[in-house]
Amino acid sequence: MAQNSFGNIFRITTFGESHGAAIGVVIDGCPALLPLEVEDIQKELDKRAPGKTPFTSPRKEKDKAQILSGIFQGKTTGAPIAIVIFNKDADSSKYEPIKNLLRPGHANFSYIKKYGIFDYRGGGRASARETAARVAAGAVAKKFLKHHKINPLAYIHSIGNIDAQTPNATFKTLQKKISTSPIYCPDFKQSKLMMGQILKAKKDGDSLGAIIETKVDSLPVGLGDPIYEKLEANLAKAMMTLPATRGIEFGEGFNAARMKGSEHNDAFIMRGRKIKSATNHAGGTLGGISTGMPLIFRVAFKPTSSIMKPQKTVNLKGESKSFSLPKGSRHDPCVAIRAVPIVEAMTALVLADALLMNRCAQL
Amino acid sequence: MAQNSFGNIFRITTFGESHGAAIGVVIDGCPALLPLEVEDIQKELDKRAPGKTPFTSPRKEKDKAQILSGIFQGKTTGAPIAIVIFNKDADSSKYEPIKNLLRPGHANFSYIKKYGIFDYRGGGRASARETAARVAAGAVAKKFLKHHKINPLAYIHSIGNIDAQTPNATFKTLQKKISTSPIYCPDFKQSKLMMGQILKAKKDGDSLGAIIETKVDSLPVGLGDPIYEKLEANLAKAMMTLPATRGIEFGEGFNAARMKGSEHNDAFIMRGRKIKSATNHAGGTLGGISTGMPLIFRVAFKPTSSIMKPQKTVNLKGESKSFSLPKGSRHDPCVAIRAVPIVEAMTALVLADALLMNRCAQL
Amino acid sequence: MAQNSFGNIFRITTFGESHGAAIGVVIDGCPALLPLEVEDIQKELDKRAPGKTPFTSPRKEKDKAQILSGIFQGKTTGAPIAIVIFNKDADSSKYEPIKNLLRPGHANFSYIKKYGIFDYRGGGRASARETAARVAAGAVAKKFLKHHKINPLAYIHSIGNIDAQTPNATFKTLQKKISTSPIYCPDFKQSKLMMGQILKAKKDGDSLGAIIETKVDSLPVGLGDPIYEKLEANLAKAMMTLPATRGIEFGEGFNAARMKGSEHNDAFIMRGRKIKSATNHAGGTLGGISTGMPLIFRVAFKPTSSIMKPQKTVNLKGESKSFSLPKGSRHDPCVAIRAVPIVEAMTALVLADALLMNRCAQL
Amino acid sequence: MAQNSFGNIFRITTFGESHGAAIGVVIDGCPALLPLEVEDIQKELDKRAPGKTPFTSPRKEKDKAQILSGIFQGKTTGAPIAIVIFNKDADSSKYEPIKNLLRPGHANFSYIKKYGIFDYRGGGRASARETAARVAAGAVAKKFLKHHKINPLAYIHSIGNIDAQTPNATFKTLQKKISTSPIYCPDFKQSKLMMGQILKAKKDGDSLGAIIETKVDSLPVGLGDPIYEKLEANLAKAMMTLPATRGIEFGEGFNAARMKGSEHNDAFIMRGRKIKSATNHAGGTLGGISTGMPLIFRVAFKPTSSIMKPQKTVNLKGESKSFSLPKGSRHDPCVAIRAVPIVEAMTALVLADALLMNRCAQL
Repeated sequence: MAQNSFGNIFRITTFGESHGAAIGVVIDGCPALLPLEVEDIQKELDKRAPGKTPFTSPRKEKDKAQILSGIFQGKTTGAPIAIVIFNKDADSSKYEPIKNLLRPGHANFSYIKKYGIFDYRGGGRASARETAARVAAGAVAKKFLKHHKINPLAYIHSIGNIDAQTPNATFKTLQKKISTSPIYCPDFKQSKLMMGQILKAKKDGDSLGAIIETKVDSLPVGLGDPIYEKLEANLAKAMMTLPATRGIEFGEGFNAARMKGSEHNDAFIMRGRKIKSATNHAGGTLGGISTGMPLIFRVAFKPTSSIMKPQKTVNLKGESKSFSLPKGSRHDPCVAIRAVPIVEAMTALVLADALLMNRCAQL
Repeated sequence: MAQNSFGNIFRITTFGESHGAAIGVVIDGCPALLPLEVEDIQKELDKRAPGKTPFTSPRKEKDKAQILSGIFQGKTTGAPIAIVIFNKDADSSKYEPIKNLLRPGHANFSYIKKYGIFDYRGGGRASARETAARVAAGAVAKKFLKHHKINPLAYIHSIGNIDAQTPNATFKTLQKKISTSPIYCPDFKQSKLMMGQILKAKKDGDSLGAIIETKVDSLPVGLGDPIYEKLEANLAKAMMTLPATRGIEFGEGFNAARMKGSEHNDAFIMRGRKIKSATNHAGGTLGGISTGMPLIFRVAFKPTSSIMKPQKTVNLKGESKSFSLPKGSRHDPCVAIRAVPIVEAMTALVLADALLMNRCAQL
Repeated sequence: MAQNSFGNIFRITTFGESHGAAIGVVIDGCPALLPLEVEDIQKELDKRAPGKTPFTSPRKEKDKAQILSGIFQGKTTGAPIAIVIFNKDADSSKYEPIKNLLRPGHANFSYIKKYGIFDYRGGGRASARETAARVAAGAVAKKFLKHHKINPLAYIHSIGNIDAQTPNATFKTLQKKISTSPIYCPDFKQSKLMMGQILKAKKDGDSLGAIIETKVDSLPVGLGDPIYEKLEANLAKAMMTLPATRGIEFGEGFNAARMKGSEHNDAFIMRGRKIKSATNHAGGTLGGISTGMPLIFRVAFKPTSSIMKPQKTVNLKGESKSFSLPKGSRHDPCVAIRAVPIVEAMTALVLADALLMNRCAQL
Repeated sequence: MAQNSFGNIFRITTFGESHGAAIGVVIDGCPALLPLEVEDIQKELDKRAPGKTPFTSPRKEKDKAQILSGIFQGKTTGAPIAIVIFNKDADSSKYEPIKNLLRPGHANFSYIKKYGIFDYRGGGRASARETAARVAAGAVAKKFLKHHKINPLAYIHSIGNIDAQTPNATFKTLQKKISTSPIYCPDFKQSKLMMGQILKAKKDGDSLGAIIETKVDSLPVGLGDPIYEKLEANLAKAMMTLPATRGIEFGEGFNAARMKGSEHNDAFIMRGRKIKSATNHAGGTLGGISTGMPLIFRVAFKPTSSIMKPQKTVNLKGESKSFSLPKGSRHDPCVAIRAVPIVEAMTALVLADALLMNRCAQL
């Protein structure tokens, strides 16, 4: 079963609850000799941290990573890398009044039914806080990928009804723009509209959904294993394990369902001495294996389930109740913004695993 | 790695190529004492067979299943159930002239690069023929689920630009209509338009994409395991291992990204003595665990990659070529129609596994 | 769970019952481009076949392997290799009279209790016949290992109270002698005594236990993964999945428990430019990883449980009964003889897997 | 790969080095609602601690467990249970002078060759210190088993040439005697001889091997899954992942190889209304599945590799050297004594997993 593990060779196991002692991750299967220091991890964690702009939760959640194992003389040794982030300042008392209410859009109902018990403090294990552990692990995977010249890049594609427009942006341009955008969006013009919508939703005590796009340039040909370890299959699984995700599409995605074969098929051509395709409707894979064209996919996030508006619900006894978050609760008006580094982390984990698996394809 | 296996406890391993000796599947972990006979499997395979209507390939592919193991006195014994379908009549000679051409939208390029060898006869291992083995395994999973009163149902939601409209259809009505539709579509009015489009595409030597929707009523609360064995995560993986799939979405799916939290959150209410939700934007899960509301998801299929129109490509040497299928080639103008029973089979496999995994949730 | 699968990257899944339609195996993860033909497999199966000498069962069990998938133009393609052996001539009628009796030393009691059903024909899934599928898979693993210059060698070390004496035999001598011995024993003098004991046991309607030793020369340094994928751990698991095995020991084995550290520790020395050890009490591993010294281990087999002598037992209702095999039953007086190629096959499977896993140890 | 994980449903992942920041374990798949507190774990860790008697290392290694996750209101929640033990007082400086020497009987040679790097401080990941994490996890498994009335019991069977004699001791007697013996041996008379030998070896700067026996009474029928998840197979793997183990045998073990079938087969009889066997040569399993008879197996441990006597070796450059431990080094003269609770822990982990897996055997 191993419900808290992900990956085959490059494999992570996460643990921890929102208001427990700590969250963390054990990374197994990271090859030896990779230079790694705690700053590599902290840098990625900081991208996920809230409270830096008005567009995320005002919580000051300074996650500080500690590496407990697996590094010697600044390098990985092949031993498991355990990273832990101790929780601080968790005030669980405000959850007491609402502990018996089923929270719309939240997991407390399904957890209680399944396990007969639920750690309701901050959402317990069901909290998105678990994703910090993934970002920590993803930082290691990214470093490993970088060594092999692979750089995954995630960014905001849509917030509410506003879509970014970046048809012809190069990978470098995207990278640069995203790094300077407070909402990780490469289209500064559309960003302004998005930010306006976010602030409005926040004021209204409401929340917004979003779409995150991921692009990976210069992926070698051959990553992904047919039949059941296809690259898209593992990426889809990876993304759908993230809280609040409702869908994923590759290349043309759902639009492909409206196209004709003669439109969707990408013609093979030569680019210098390399076989490429003239278009990239497929989004970088064929038969579940990378083709050397850019990998492209989008993930849909629902609007944050925690909203300030009162909502109808029932309690565990089945009595009708009104649910309201305690005053002063601090939530993300659009959770997907902070999900950008998380999507990037999960992408890195899938690619690192596929890269290692591919070493066994031939004699 | 186990690239050809899927599932944890209820686990399948498939084998076989399009034009090899046989295709087949080994089902491991099916509980003992399930009544099972070869007709249970044949019935499902027949749903996938082409040649019955003008809307699928005119090939007469009578797949005949044989059970090689795992059944005694009409029941499963806990031993692995091996099912084999021997291939017949495969004429591989027509693949000879095109064996060195990269086929747009096909996997031969990525396979050759990865493995250094490719069984080009009928697409070899990359052929959708492998899915017959999944349908056979899915038939066993469906029988197991039926014993536990769970019935997954897949159907055509869209073909090309035509969408079925079934807003208020009950599960029973859906079931009945689908069983009598030549294209597995519950909306007979829209079906006519769809069928017209298919025949037109066929005449044009082109192909169409489609969207398949799946609905599972009366799923018990508690299926799916956080964090990395979420029900959606395993369903997403399952679907993205299918040939030609480009995306998946649950409940409101990509539309959720355009909604506000106050719109998307489903209010909990009582229905009789059961806790349900007033709406079902979530599509039947919260926190990756089934809630007892209907499970709903949609899968996008690209248009069939095999088209009769000539296409630009290169050969293995990198020379520009025109690719045309041999005259008399027979292909599905819309591959998604035959994918309906396959999507249902994969859904059944994921649910059977989740049902068994759930037995270990509590003390 | 995957109870019928073994291995991580080079992974097998077996199926089939003694008197069912067929037995077989699916090999997943065998690298592409390995030359392979059905004779490679048949050759190994023939070593396991009974009826060739008076020292094994007189049954004429000509197992004929068919490769159903995974080979193209004489080479593996990276696709799963399915091998099937159809069962012939199984006369299950003689099992009818004894189907409700618990057979001493057999698995029918534990299977019935566990599964609520038992295919009693020839022992069903619990029959040692399943091991033919392992030998077939092992043949593929051996071919892969041979490509990497690794050759595992198993042979009879003891039968009853007679031990082979081969203190200084070279690997080549062992190999040659075993290939010409009717009981796979490299010590011809002791063999004679062993054969005498076997014939006596046979005449008495009784059976004998045995010890099989395995030796692998020229193993590269580095196979085996700490902590839970140690080479010995996977070999021990592999051997204890074989019917009739009761123990395994590596290097000095149980004798090590009687030694002092100063006696058991192997001193490191130089042999030419390679680091070796002066002695090999450890048996070829340190810390679960191969050291480049010969890998040596021994497996204990209990005496065949099927004996002609009448035995006390009870039936499923709990009534006392006498159990006798039907007249004309044909069994191995010492099952371990035919287990020699099986032990070799399982060793090959573990080593092939370890060899592939080792490709991911470094950056 | 997941080299640092063990188990299928009840699954552990360990991390940490001897002289790193911490060691620890993540337990995944422990059912919800099990009462658990840190004392349950500490109690077991204390059994493994050295320094309490002259028969173990004089190091004062007070391992203090912290539970980081998975517990709420004194009970497990189904979330992963992370347990960490921070390392203290590790003085790595004494390893500096010997860091380039290959240590006879140790893993530094094979690790360096495999990974290209080795954390030599206290043996790094290869240190037996990792087993403390297993004991912590085993404490949780034992609590779960106890809830189901299953109690595994390990004890010293032999040290050097001295064997304990406990032919007719009841389980309760064994339990009681072991708990009061400083060397976990149920035979007080033989214990005295053993202790004498240990003190002598210690004085000589040498070490002793040992055999640990494990007994589990009142195991339900049906644990263990054919073919490749046999109870013995998983126990054998579990034990051979422990440092210093050289062999394992079940029931009669290697002695079975010297017996006849008519001697070894256990006759089925009735004990009250239960089916049992008159003898227990098999050691509690048939066909890899528990029979309800006591489970019995023995594990051979080599003498501690760390001895005070000087030994011949080479350094990494291949130069001949003499290896001596720094003065004041503190090691166990017989490492197996402290391995008793570790063997018990590993047994508990295998049984907990098998117990959960068995829930899926029938419809």
